[in-house]
Amino acid sequence: MIKKISHIAVVVPNLEEALGFWVEVLGLPLAHMEYVPDQGVDVAFLPAGESDVELLEPVTEDSGVARFLQKRGPGMHHICFEVDDIEAMLARLKAANVPLINEEPTIGTGGKKIAFVHPKGTGGVLVELYESTPEEPMRRREKLVEMRRRLREGRRVYTAGIRAFLAGLWGNGDKSD
Amino acid sequence: MIKKISHIAVVVPNLEEALGFWVEVLGLPLAHMEYVPDQGVDVAFLPAGESDVELLEPVTEDSGVARFLQKRGPGMHHICFEVDDIEAMLARLKAANVPLINEEPTIGTGGKKIAFVHPKGTGGVLVELYESTPEEPMRRREKLVEMRRRLREGRRVYTAGIRAFLAGLWGNGDKSD
Repeated sequence: MIKKISHIAVVVPNLEEALGFWVEVLGLPLAHMEYVPDQGVDVAFLPAGESDVELLEPVTEDSGVARFLQKRGPGMHHICFEVDDIEAMLARLKAANVPLINEEPTIGTGGKKIAFVHPKGTGGVLVELYESTPEEPMRRREKLVEMRRRLREGRRVYTAGIRAFLAGLWGNGDKSD
Repeated sequence: MIKKISHIAVVVPNLEEALGFWVEVLGLPLAHMEYVPDQGVDVAFLPAGESDVELLEPVTEDSGVARFLQKRGPGMHHICFEVDDIEAMLARLKAANVPLINEEPTIGTGGKKIAFVHPKGTGGVLVELYESTPEEPMRRREKLVEMRRRLREGRRVYTAGIRAFLAGLWGNGDKSD
């Protein structure tokens, strides 16, 4: 069963410029940022009610997101639904012969499960399914620490404005590490 | 201020086939359907948590949605945010020189207000802003009656499955009119 829209993913060429619109002009809060090595993207999460706008910037040249940006330009990339039982949902889709990008769920940090449904099967929409675990939110802090490490190593440069956002997310307690 | 994602709009070439996937396979409920003459579309609303997936089928050949379908194919069309004060949001966007499709809100049924922001100003995403009114939900029934009239006049043909969905939405009390 689908519980809600988890997020709408938007591909952007430059995360910082995008935050200038979505956060500073439109007024959405920046709640979290992380680097997702599997997909070669830096990601920012901006809550709007119970769902997020997820901004994706490709930081490697060979990822699916990078190819999307080259081919189609910036814009909406996928819609992610949170489900209560991802295996049951995948079984329903298979029974209906809907083509899947992931036949089995991929296990992410904190045990969360995700799987993508092929746009051929949905009428042109890349659909992600997502099942959360109680452990997953507790892993967010580790991801923020990793994001800060990237900043310190110079692998990612943000202006003072974004660094201030990030400092706010990290909180004071972590400033020494 | 943005309250939530009101809906994600998906353009489809055939509403009935699309409902076959989104409702029958994915399991989203069909909560409402209406015909929007201004935009030349038949629309179905499928709630997922506090937001809707909005399926749009162009039923005239000269609408913006019809041109989108011809040019880009089926897929995600726009994201709509519900805001508490649409005039205040439009003023913020104008102050930031964000190009708008609607400089002033369009007033819909029940007094609801909507305005579109140009994708040039958002990084490739067509953004709709929406402010509801207390009267608006009460107008839904009128729109369902109009949809049924279209069915009876043969301007729109659905299979038995969709007619049954619609009959369920209308309820028994309206069957005689």
